[in-house]
This record gives sequence, structure tokens and C-alpha cells, in this order.
Amino acid sequence: MRRVYFDHIASTPVHPQVMEAMLPYLKEFYGNPQSLHSFGQETASAIEEAREKVAQLIEADTEEVFFTSSGTESNNFAIKGMTLAQRTKGKHIVVSAVEHQSVLHPVKSLEKSGFSVTEVPVDSFGLVDPEHVRKAITPETVLVSVMLANGEVGTIEPVAAVAKVCREMGVLCHTDAVDAVGNIPVSVITLGVDALSLAGNQFYGPTGSAALFLKKGTRCLPQIDGGIQESGKRAGSENISGIVGLGKAAEMAQEKLNVRGDMVRSLRDAIIQRMEQEVDHVILTGHPKNRLPHHASFCVEFIEGEAMLLNLDMKGIAAASGSACTSRALKASHVLLAMGLDHATAQGSLVFSLVEENTTEDIDYLFEVFPEIIERLRQMSPLYPKQEEE
Amino acid sequence: MRRVYFDHIASTPVHPQVMEAMLPYLKEFYGNPQSLHSFGQETASAIEEAREKVAQLIEADTEEVFFTSSGTESNNFAIKGMTLAQRTKGKHIVVSAVEHQSVLHPVKSLEKSGFSVTEVPVDSFGLVDPEHVRKAITPETVLVSVMLANGEVGTIEPVAAVAKVCREMGVLCHTDAVDAVGNIPVSVITLGVDALSLAGNQFYGPTGSAALFLKKGTRCLPQIDGGIQESGKRAGSENISGIVGLGKAAEMAQEKLNVRGDMVRSLRDAIIQRMEQEVDHVILTGHPKNRLPHHASFCVEFIEGEAMLLNLDMKGIAAASGSACTSRALKASHVLLAMGLDHATAQGSLVFSLVEENTTEDIDYLFEVFPEIIERLRQMSPLYPKQEEE
Repeated sequence: MRRVYFDHIASTPVHPQVMEAMLPYLKEFYGNPQSLHSFGQETASAIEEAREKVAQLIEADTEEVFFTSSGTESNNFAIKGMTLAQRTKGKHIVVSAVEHQSVLHPVKSLEKSGFSVTEVPVDSFGLVDPEHVRKAITPETVLVSVMLANGEVGTIEPVAAVAKVCREMGVLCHTDAVDAVGNIPVSVITLGVDALSLAGNQFYGPTGSAALFLKKGTRCLPQIDGGIQESGKRAGSENISGIVGLGKAAEMAQEKLNVRGDMVRSLRDAIIQRMEQEVDHVILTGHPKNRLPHHASFCVEFIEGEAMLLNLDMKGIAAASGSACTSRALKASHVLLAMGLDHATAQGSLVFSLVEENTTEDIDYLFEVFPEIIERLRQMSPLYPKQEEE
Repeated sequence: MRRVYFDHIASTPVHPQVMEAMLPYLKEFYGNPQSLHSFGQETASAIEEAREKVAQLIEADTEEVFFTSSGTESNNFAIKGMTLAQRTKGKHIVVSAVEHQSVLHPVKSLEKSGFSVTEVPVDSFGLVDPEHVRKAITPETVLVSVMLANGEVGTIEPVAAVAKVCREMGVLCHTDAVDAVGNIPVSVITLGVDALSLAGNQFYGPTGSAALFLKKGTRCLPQIDGGIQESGKRAGSENISGIVGLGKAAEMAQEKLNVRGDMVRSLRDAIIQRMEQEVDHVILTGHPKNRLPHHASFCVEFIEGEAMLLNLDMKGIAAASGSACTSRALKASHVLLAMGLDHATAQGSLVFSLVEENTTEDIDYLFEVFPEIIERLRQMSPLYPKQEEE
């Protein structure tokens, strides 16, 4: 059976060149980078080289990049570390209503220890209004966190404008850029943020390797305490091969970002166009233009996302129905609800995310099987209006 | 130049078979394990298989093993997660004076939020007395953490007896077994602990992959919040290849533990014997018998550890002078000071740690170059008693 992978927002494959770069650090070089001998120097310099590559990808300084084990850890580190470092100043946080769980849940943890939070609403495209952020900021506010791109609906948020508001109000600004970095050009200078999370497995790097950008001078308390790794900001023996892989993936992304973007954009547009033409009762979710180039997301009315996923999977096609991190929870997406969709429609969420290796043949195959799946599921669905069946 | 690696306590190489097991998860299988499609199922089952192998190595149930990114993270997770889960019960923690920084520093963080800590002393071998633990426990105590084996001096602690005291006193017991698991037989049943940390890079697994054992029913709050990975206890996309590597390393350790132990023990004994015979003013640190089989540690009087390391390194030999996690801090080891050594002697710490691939030729080479290095450094040392020079 043909197998087609359209779930790159959940995780990309490791690029063969990334794996090649990692292999020496699984074979020959294994010294602990903190050790004073030459075995340690070899891995220490590999880590610093990777740090430089990641820094270059986002126009940061090398010493502003701190390695972590996942985008989720980066978000936890920023949210908890930056707020706790300022707790004598104030205990209020502002986030958007469409953040990933790895931002919303750390915020919930902080609420238990006396912080309060304001969730800024979004419009029907999932867009945050920077002026809503301004209104949400109080003298108690110590951190604003608004994501750069939403993994469920693809919308790119006006983070530069949000960060400008934050600077004017004297509040630190973090952005979860996990779904954006490596897929669209991202510059911490242009954005003007104080902290930014990114993860390698969104752009051909291995899982288990991610980073947090922290602007020079930004106070952020370590969340993993122990040794002196990562300038004392994140303890624990470094994931050497993973970090090297992240560095290589960053280098490749910087070289190929535009080419990759053009390729996936045309594939994505084909999916959107054919979905509108060939399938009834389909709503494009997220912003029609201002969205991730590799991301096409929909709500298919009268059907549950899970049923579509399982039926597509039986045909060898992998897609998503929201964030992989909560897919097994099978709840209606808080992102879609925040955008004003009703529960029933939100249940029909379907996300296709691409890489340049995807082909028009993949898309042909999708539309060969998908309308039939939809038709069958609708016939079984108690939600489907019977008058339309004829 | 000959290169000899005697610093396996800082990190072992990845075993070729471990790397082979990892490769498919860097090449072919990349689905997010949380995704509902078959690409995700493939990696999800690989992770569960690895969990089973890690569980078997320590005689735990599969669902008692939670993957993390390092031994340090496991220790942070246990110390913070278990105490914070019980904070309404009490706010006192008992640790030994010779714990790793990844236990002592999280405890310090907790002190800032109102917890208090008692450090139980050790004897001159670095041994904790379980009765000292009993005396340190108060009605406020919620957690005892005593390591299973000390990475700086090799001493194996009486953790089973400590855990027994804890059970009698109704207090939870965690052990940092990072330097022990994979090197000596470890059973959570025999030990009777509620939580245990281990790390793959101590027994031929990759860095970036570790685990925490949590006995069924033990409450431990997540320290990384977000998605539903690791049964909701540790969020973040899984380090798939790293976890698979840890599983393979655990499987191999279980098969080969005794053979490996016998091989490194004889090499270790040779180092200890020759050091005593061929080098003056050398003190064996840690327990002479009850110690890790692959671990020989000394204090060489009148010389600083760093100088020895650099001179050994110039001859191609990698050794350590304490924990890699703090090696660049260049402070006298808190472990040696707790054992009653004075600052000057503690500065002369030197640790050799082995794997079965080390040879008697490696040791011959060490003793070919080491006495000369010592002689030269002593001549330069202002600490060396001049009357002995003749």
C-alpha cells in the first residue's frame, strides 16, 4: 500500500544529512563536554558549533541560545523561569487563547502558586490583536507569551507588534516559535522578543533536541538544577548527537528555507483548492493567506476528526486532527473553540502538513481516497442532515 | 599518540549494537508517538518496548518507568515532584552530604520556597549510616534521598537499609542510582525505594536519554507541563532514538552485567594495586571493598587534580577529578570534604572509571607515564615537603 505522510507538524523525519552529521557523535566522540580532557573538548566544540548554527538561523548571538530536550521544555523553561525570576515585581501573565498546552499548562501550574493569568482572545482566523494584549497588561504583569505560528490552524501571529507593545509597557515577551522556526524566516531582531522557543523535529532535526533563545540580560531561573551545563541555566549531561543534529538541521534550514517554502506552498495551495472543489461542507481553518507555508487545515462538517484519521490511515495516509501532544485526549480543540467554531464543527478538525519531499502524486492519492471516506462516514453520521443525502 | 579513556563515569561510548538499534529511528520511523496514525504507532511501540527493557533491568513494572532527558532531570523530577506533591503534609527533606549536584541543587531551590533540609553526614569511606537517617527524620519530613553509588569515590551506599528506615517512619525514599544502574545489579524490589533515577550514558546508551522509576501509586507532580506524554507525568515530544538506545543498552546490561563486572573489577584492582605500589603519597578514596566495580579513585597529595588531568591528557589519557558536571568549577569536592579530607588533599582528587573494552595495556601505559607526571608536578608544587625531595 502506498504510504503518504502529511503530518510533519507533529514531527518531520530526520534528514539524511542531519543523521550523517549525528553519526560521529554516536560512534567516535563520546567525551562528556564538561570534562577537562581532549575527549570532552571534542564534544564541547561540536556543541558550540551547533549553538552558533542555531543562533544564526534566528539572528541571535551564540550565547543567547540554550539547548533543551523539547519545544515543550523550552516553553516551560521560559514561562516558569522568566516569571519566577520576577516574582517580587508582579504575578500576572498574559497569553493568547490559542497557545500550545506547553504554554497553557505551565501557566496553570503557576496559577497554583499565586500567579494570575489573562487569556487574550483571537478573531475567527485565530489572530491575536496586539491592542488586546496592551489592554490585558496591568502593573502586575511580568510576562506576555504569544506564539509565532499556530500548529493547529497555521495562522502566523503578529508577534513583532505584540513585542512592541510589551516594550512600550515594560513587560517581557516570549514567543513559542516551535512550529515556525525552520519553516518560515524567523529573526529575533525583527521580532524584538526577549525569549523564543524552537524545536529541531519541526525542520528535519531529531526529536529530543530543542532550544530556548534568551535575549542577553534576560533573567530566567533554571528549571533543571544541578551541574554547570548551558552556562548554569539548564543542568544535565548534554544530548550530544541530538544537539549536533539540531545544529545541522538549522544550517540546512537557513540555506534552503526559501526553496522549501516555495515547494510546500504550492502543494499546500493545491490541497486547499482541491478540498474546496472536491469535498462538500469543508471549512478552511486559520488565516487564508497569513499562514505557515506547509500547513493546510480544515473542519469537515458532520464527521469526527478521529474517524477521518483512522480511515485515512487505513489507506496509508497520515494526517492530524490537532496537536499531536493532545491527540489521544480526543477533546475539541481549544484553538478552534477560541476562534468561534462550535463544538461539533471543531470535532471535524483535519490538518495536513508538508515537506518538500511530498509530491503532487501524494495529493492525487489523497483526493482519490478522501471523498469516498467522507461520503461513507457521513452516511454513518447521525449529525449529517438527511435532506442533503439525495 | 595512544589514546586511553578512563572517564566512563562521565559518559560511556554508545555501544555499536545500541547505535544499530537507534538507526531505524533516525532513518525510517519518525511518526510522533502520540499521533493516531500507523507512523505514530510504530514509534509508540518502540518506546513501550524500551520501557519494558528498562523496567526489567531494575525489576520494576513497565508502567513504573518514565523517560526523561538526563539523570539530572530524573533527580530534579523526583526531588521537586515528590516533595511538592506532599507539601500540605510537611516541608522537610533529608539527603546525604555526598549527593550529586542534581540532588543538592533542586533541594536548594526548594529551600527558597519554604522547605528545610537536613544533610546526613558520611564516614571516612563516604558511607551513610541508616540510623543517622532515622534520627534526621521529623514529623515534617516528606522525602529522603540517598544515592546508590557515589560517582566521585565509588562507594555503594546501604540504600536498602535506608529505605527500610523510611518505610518504618512513613517517609518516601528516592535514590539517585545514575552511577550504579547498568554497572551493578539493581533491583527496586530489593532496594525497596519509592523512586530511582538512572541514565543511559552510564552503560553504553546515548546521552539525552534517562529514566525515573516511580513505584506504583507514588505521587510525583510533573515538572515539565504540556501534552499527555509519559502518562501525563512528563510532557514533550519523546526523544525516540534516544529512548530506543536506552532500551537496548538496558537489555545488554541485563545480559552482560556479571561478565562486565568481573572484567572491570580486575582492571580496577590492578590500578589500585599499582597506584599504591608505584606512586607515593596516594590515598584510595571511598570504600575499599564496597565500591563500584569499574571505579578507582584517589587523592594524590601535594598536587592539584586539574594539573594531573591536563598532563595526563597531553599523554592521551582521559581521567576525572570529580563530577564532570562541576569539573569546570574547580572547587574542592563536597564529597571528599564530607568524608573528612582537608581542602588541600581533596584538591588532588583523581578518578579512573572503566569499561570492559579497557585493557591491561591501557593500564601499563598509564603507569608508564603517570609516575613521571607526578614527580614533575611535585617538584613544581609549593605544597610538596622539600625534605622528601632527596
